[in-house]
Amino acid sequence: MSDLKQRILEDGKVFPNNVLKVDSFLNHQIDPIVIGNIADELLAHFGDKKITKVLTIEASGIAPAITIAAKLGVPMLFAKKQKPSTLQNDETYGTIVHSYTKNTDSHVVISKQYLNQEDRVLIVDDFLANGEAAMGLINIAEQAHATIVGVGICIEKSFQDGRQRIVDHGVDIYSVVRIASLENETLTFAEGH
Amino acid sequence: MSDLKQRILEDGKVFPNNVLKVDSFLNHQIDPIVIGNIADELLAHFGDKKITKVLTIEASGIAPAITIAAKLGVPMLFAKKQKPSTLQNDETYGTIVHSYTKNTDSHVVISKQYLNQEDRVLIVDDFLANGEAAMGLINIAEQAHATIVGVGICIEKSFQDGRQRIVDHGVDIYSVVRIASLENETLTFAEGH
Repeated sequence: MSDLKQRILEDGKVFPNNVLKVDSFLNHQIDPIVIGNIADELLAHFGDKKITKVLTIEASGIAPAITIAAKLGVPMLFAKKQKPSTLQNDETYGTIVHSYTKNTDSHVVISKQYLNQEDRVLIVDDFLANGEAAMGLINIAEQAHATIVGVGICIEKSFQDGRQRIVDHGVDIYSVVRIASLENETLTFAEGH
Repeated sequence: MSDLKQRILEDGKVFPNNVLKVDSFLNHQIDPIVIGNIADELLAHFGDKKITKVLTIEASGIAPAITIAAKLGVPMLFAKKQKPSTLQNDETYGTIVHSYTKNTDSHVVISKQYLNQEDRVLIVDDFLANGEAAMGLINIAEQAHATIVGVGICIEKSFQDGRQRIVDHGVDIYSVVRIASLENETLTFAEGH
């Protein structure tokens, strides 16, 4: 059993509406040992793909992404939910990411300067549910004509359609933990995960 | 000369209104080697202070904070600019942080569960200017009755009053790079930094 799965069993809390609270170790308070083990497992899958850049979105993707980037010795790049004052519109690649939990649309951007057709990009995020953030990052990487090596996820809600959207798009996806169901506030892992 | 200072000279760009753009290596695209060296220098100053937790604020503080936390083997905790749906108001410590560059007020929160009087906290951020974010994090740590070991900053704008506010509050501050002036779009480091 992965370290992350063990930790979810010990410290995760299931709330109504399919919410899994893991803020004691993954996305508010962050345990660097858990993050280090996640990075190792994602790199066991993607590590030989000649990655030149790790791409994520603020804020909870940053900790796993920088940890993976440090192990690879390549830069990490995070998409921003607010355009910095130092960037003009024509200097950015942007896309809309809808959040179902917050019911908000974010216009996320990256600077064109830091992603191009020479790049081989690993996309990383803490959660995958409907795939809005991951598909947004795929869209941005495609605007830059970068090669997408794959999508690496800490916790996947396999009962939502994010994984299928990514697979249908022809992009490799690997999730450290896959959750089959959170119905009736009961956590069931996907078989073999 | 520190690695960060060298990198600022090579890749930093000064914009009007005292803006230093370092988004090629510090707060958009992030170079893990620069971040690792920053972490080492901050730990050379604060490393023997029996730190139990590294505290920062989303989003640009997360990369240096998790890197320091990993080297110390303690958790990192980041204040959120939006209250998560899984937290009630009475379960959080909160404070208002004003952004002078964006001219916005953010109500930042942390869960009461993850900070208490047993904690010895190192506060970390990428930039220090007016000290709004750092003072907000100090305020939150004080609400939790935690001990504040100090404030560790990557780049300090020493011509603004953030450092003095922290010193006046009796909190130790160490900045890897201190900038004396950005007037006339010219960067001048503080002496000895």
